Amino acid sequence: MSEIQRFGVTRRCSDAVVYNGVAQFVEVADDSSQDVRGQVTQVLAQIESRLALVGSDKTRLLQVLIYLADLQDGPVLNELWDNWVPEGHAPSRACVQCGLAPGYRVEMVISAAVR
Amino acid sequence: MSEIQRFGVTRRCSDAVVYNGVAQFVEVADDSSQDVRGQVTQVLAQIESRLALVGSDKTRLLQVLIYLADLQDGPVLNELWDNWVPEGHAPSRACVQCGLAPGYRVEMVISAAVR
Amino acid sequence: MSEIQRFGVTRRCSDAVVYNGVAQFVEVADDSSQDVRGQVTQVLAQIESRLALVGSDKTRLLQVLIYLADLQDGPVLNELWDNWVPEGHAPSRACVQCGLAPGYRVEMVISAAVR
Repeated sequence: MSEIQRFGVTRRCSDAVVYNGVAQFVEVADDSSQDVRGQVTQVLAQIESRLALVGSDKTRLLQVLIYLADLQDGPVLNELWDNWVPEGHAPSRACVQCGLAPGYRVEMVISAAVR
Repeated sequence: MSEIQRFGVTRRCSDAVVYNGVAQFVEVADDSSQDVRGQVTQVLAQIESRLALVGSDKTRLLQVLIYLADLQDGPVLNELWDNWVPEGHAPSRACVQCGLAPGYRVEMVISAAVR
Repeated sequence: MSEIQRFGVTRRCSDAVVYNGVAQFVEVADDSSQDVRGQVTQVLAQIESRLALVGSDKTRLLQVLIYLADLQDGPVLNELWDNWVPEGHAPSRACVQCGLAPGYRVEMVISAAVR
């Protein structure tokens, strides 16, 4: 049985957890003062960095659950998302509207295969 | 390490992704003009088709996260669900109310073991 | 390939499902008449019991998705959570606001590695 690897562990949560060849992590924009376009751009860049850190990359995404503070932001999300996901490697994806912490426009829950 | 299998890949998402013996996918009703009863019926039928496609079946569901546009639809969901799930093989299940895209009453996030 | 283990199976759902060394389960407070502090306390205790039942413990949590009925309850959740999670073993965590069944203040979706 593989061991659990934790990255960026704080009192409250880990930035990423890897087990059995699968990485799980959650991202919100580091700078929540930006608008939805800025926040989605940040989150997608943060995902790429996190994937690199855990030994994965964006061709190995398994599933992404997207929480938007406002579904009206869907078109901006989709425009940035569609340009970001590598063709032929899109993950399973859900996108729903939930209440997020003040200022946040988007939160993503990611699972990815590690190499 | 197993390879990632993707089914029904578009620019935005895959209909299903299989890795390490686990399939992950998301379903909303193909015809969102129907009422909640019609949509839940469709989603459950779509899940069965998807499970067959990836080499699984409804005795092998692991977890289902259900997003309802309105929790008042819970009784209709549960009536159809309880008749659909094979006895003795029910998955772990969560059900919460979230904002869904216009017209949609239900969205389900499924994980299942493949054979 | 490992077999699927189900715990506490009812017509509608299983209390927990274990596959490939990973347990998945969902918890809401057994007594939903309590306030948020009481419900979070219960849910965390229920998680510990469930983890013991499936052959895991709270040092082996992988990811927890937290649904709050009201994000204003975040500080109470975090106070109890931070004291509950074993230092150095925090899981990946998301926390959003969703509609929950009447009376419920919190629902958690847990994945954990079994020993």
